[in-house]
Amino acid sequence: MNRSALPDAGFIDPSGANDEAVRDLTERVVDGLLAQLTGASERSPLPDDPTSLSAAIPDESRESAELLADLEAAVEGSMNPAAPGYIGHMDTVPTTVSVLGDLVASAVNNNMLSVEMSPVFSELEVRLTETIATEFGLGPDAGGVLTSGGTLANLHALAVARNDSFDVHEGGLAAVDREPVLFASSVAHTSLQKAAMLLGLGADAVVPVETDGDSRMDPVALDRAVTDARESGRAPFCVVATAGTTTTGNVDPLPAIRNVAREHDLWFHVDAAYGGALVFSRRERDRLRGIDAADSVTFNPQKWCYVAKTCAMALFADADVLREEFRIGAPYMRGDDAIPNLGELSVQGTRRADVLKLWLTFQHLGRDGLEQLLDESYRLTALVRDRVERRDSLELASDPETNIVCFRATPDWCPRDERDELNGRLQRTLLSEYDVFVSLPTYRGSRWLRTVLLNPFTGEETLDDLFEGVDTFLRAARSEYVS
Amino acid sequence: MNRSALPDAGFIDPSGANDEAVRDLTERVVDGLLAQLTGASERSPLPDDPTSLSAAIPDESRESAELLADLEAAVEGSMNPAAPGYIGHMDTVPTTVSVLGDLVASAVNNNMLSVEMSPVFSELEVRLTETIATEFGLGPDAGGVLTSGGTLANLHALAVARNDSFDVHEGGLAAVDREPVLFASSVAHTSLQKAAMLLGLGADAVVPVETDGDSRMDPVALDRAVTDARESGRAPFCVVATAGTTTTGNVDPLPAIRNVAREHDLWFHVDAAYGGALVFSRRERDRLRGIDAADSVTFNPQKWCYVAKTCAMALFADADVLREEFRIGAPYMRGDDAIPNLGELSVQGTRRADVLKLWLTFQHLGRDGLEQLLDESYRLTALVRDRVERRDSLELASDPETNIVCFRATPDWCPRDERDELNGRLQRTLLSEYDVFVSLPTYRGSRWLRTVLLNPFTGEETLDDLFEGVDTFLRAARSEYVS
Repeated sequence: MNRSALPDAGFIDPSGANDEAVRDLTERVVDGLLAQLTGASERSPLPDDPTSLSAAIPDESRESAELLADLEAAVEGSMNPAAPGYIGHMDTVPTTVSVLGDLVASAVNNNMLSVEMSPVFSELEVRLTETIATEFGLGPDAGGVLTSGGTLANLHALAVARNDSFDVHEGGLAAVDREPVLFASSVAHTSLQKAAMLLGLGADAVVPVETDGDSRMDPVALDRAVTDARESGRAPFCVVATAGTTTTGNVDPLPAIRNVAREHDLWFHVDAAYGGALVFSRRERDRLRGIDAADSVTFNPQKWCYVAKTCAMALFADADVLREEFRIGAPYMRGDDAIPNLGELSVQGTRRADVLKLWLTFQHLGRDGLEQLLDESYRLTALVRDRVERRDSLELASDPETNIVCFRATPDWCPRDERDELNGRLQRTLLSEYDVFVSLPTYRGSRWLRTVLLNPFTGEETLDDLFEGVDTFLRAARSEYVS
Repeated sequence: MNRSALPDAGFIDPSGANDEAVRDLTERVVDGLLAQLTGASERSPLPDDPTSLSAAIPDESRESAELLADLEAAVEGSMNPAAPGYIGHMDTVPTTVSVLGDLVASAVNNNMLSVEMSPVFSELEVRLTETIATEFGLGPDAGGVLTSGGTLANLHALAVARNDSFDVHEGGLAAVDREPVLFASSVAHTSLQKAAMLLGLGADAVVPVETDGDSRMDPVALDRAVTDARESGRAPFCVVATAGTTTTGNVDPLPAIRNVAREHDLWFHVDAAYGGALVFSRRERDRLRGIDAADSVTFNPQKWCYVAKTCAMALFADADVLREEFRIGAPYMRGDDAIPNLGELSVQGTRRADVLKLWLTFQHLGRDGLEQLLDESYRLTALVRDRVERRDSLELASDPETNIVCFRATPDWCPRDERDELNGRLQRTLLSEYDVFVSLPTYRGSRWLRTVLLNPFTGEETLDDLFEGVDTFLRAARSEYVS
């Protein structure tokens, strides 16, 4: 073809005709990127003046030198989860092989829509989700699909739960008399409200169940809420337990919730997006006891398994339910008996081969490596908790069960109604003066400092910086208040 | 931390401590990958014996040499859209910069959930979707979000359309009396049925509208269908026009459909997942006339703009509608006045920065490069069409309007009820003996050979191979039948 308007390295010529140009561009991008990544500890966890890239579309190809400069500025201005002081969110420095796996997945550009378009990766996804389902004890008929993020996994699971409970696959909810409702703790993830809204149940169909003081769902309150809903004419169909709440990382009492779900004949979904990783720690996996009774599980290796995002999954104890309660056939795809066309069984159609980076991460870290990362997380968590507890002016939000410690400054010299503002200032000071980024969520009506001890490059020095920052800030603030 | 169980290059140390191990692993993966990609024309468009990777999770880190060998086998066994003979699906060899952009996006692992977690990329996504909305003529208030595939874009648009028409964001569909229905041509994409099923409308809520002989929706039939639905007590709320149908690439008559939508006060969605790319060809963009009146548009640069998958978007003529009709707030995220937290306004929460590879592709190809690719697609399409028309034993499925030519062999010596089988054999022969992959969709009850002239490395030689294959096969088959 006429390629006069295209840059030399626009595409990778499959006959090697532009091998040199492609290698040159690739090397420059890779070298520049590695230089930035291996120096990430020099940059703030969060940039203070991110660059703006122009969104105009140029007529002609821009010089690659210009693009590389823009790319460098973009990385420079991006969130920097590799910095040792980045302990603010469930976002992490990814494994090296997951980054390289994404490179390969993009380059071969296969499509998880159908077996024909991704023969190796479709089979691997089916097998690897079976393997993980087995880790959770979901039984011999279990399986699932990967999703581009945990919100889609929750949406998928709740869609199947809804379809399994009401006959709405073809006819919709208009024919259902009683209002379907599901139950989750009051601190469960907002993706449940989003899923309920999308599914036509309405965001209010998620009935919030009271928690104990440590953000764990109260099974007695659950039982009562289900009974109340039924008595008021609504149609309970599902309970969602959370293993690793977003703000404080707590784990709902799965066995007790399972019992309530069974008693009321409800679908039992476990949102283990975060906490599911514990299955890889022999020391901690008992915290997931009861998950083996789940009808469906959400699990995001993109969080505590250190896989580059996105990498999440919806698992089902009975994988056939996808064919029976969810499937939408596509006439333009050819089937295969052994491996299904995954696009027919999942929320997404065309999808990347995220399974490759997940598989590579398991192969490269091994169980032992993953376990070490998880256990180290717990070690740092205990240290942070201890330092919080040793300070009278600090308060814990909950008993840390995973690797999140959420706390706030509540010194008696600061009036209650000024404490949110005080903690906000403290959070900004920690970032600007100590290069420590903690997040500032709203929880039980107040602002908290949230540390997520996920980063494998966070050491005790970062914790020293954090608490030196806290102490110094509070001393200075106190003198302000007292004077 | 104790990293005794982790491989040297497990993570990229932000202080450069394992720089050498990381560079070594990266180079080996990149070199191996480039060797395979620059030799892709040597491999079949579809492998015939894909490798199976073991889904077991090893206890210890596996040697990188083993992983590289597995990776090589995986690429070897994958769909190979770079092969010149790959003309079977809307899947393409991706631009070099989109592959490298994905590498960078994975490495920095930012999160489109919130501005805090992706400052540069959130702003770029808002601006670039505005730019593209402007290309479609959607007006000064337009904007949108990227989605991980076109199915999610259709889901997003229909969710907003539903919420805008019925008050179901909080309360759900249980309170809606009349059954909501939407309209799309009988050959529109199955993601609409999937979206309707997910949205609680039921898959049957998509009322199929008759098409003309070239797969274009009949506006008169649409008008009648809407009136009929209303008269039978259902509640029409949306019309979906398709710009680039999946099987034959045809474009619905957008101005006429817009008129019907206006007359009946329906949301007007255009699924331009495939055909939206035409906006970048001065010669062909008029085929999209009428799209400027859309309330929402689905557009997938992952197809005819050659961006590595996934890269799709939902655009809205009034971007405020996302805040008003879709938003689910998240208490753990901090807001920003100028740039919203995109996770609150879209189906997904955590999401990759797909905008980077899209932006890089526009910058590197420029409008001129993109236009040349589109126009070359049309040149090859005309050639294929001409060769089909010159053969009495071949039949066109429709008048090609984009770059898809769908045809089948209907020789008079082959009985009608054996023609599907004949075309199936022909398709397999083309792949095995001529290295040409065309797909074999079901369309109007029959099997067709579908060519998608998308691949920038497909030249006239491939077309020669294709038709030599067709002629040779049919000659041989004829003698079989006649004897």
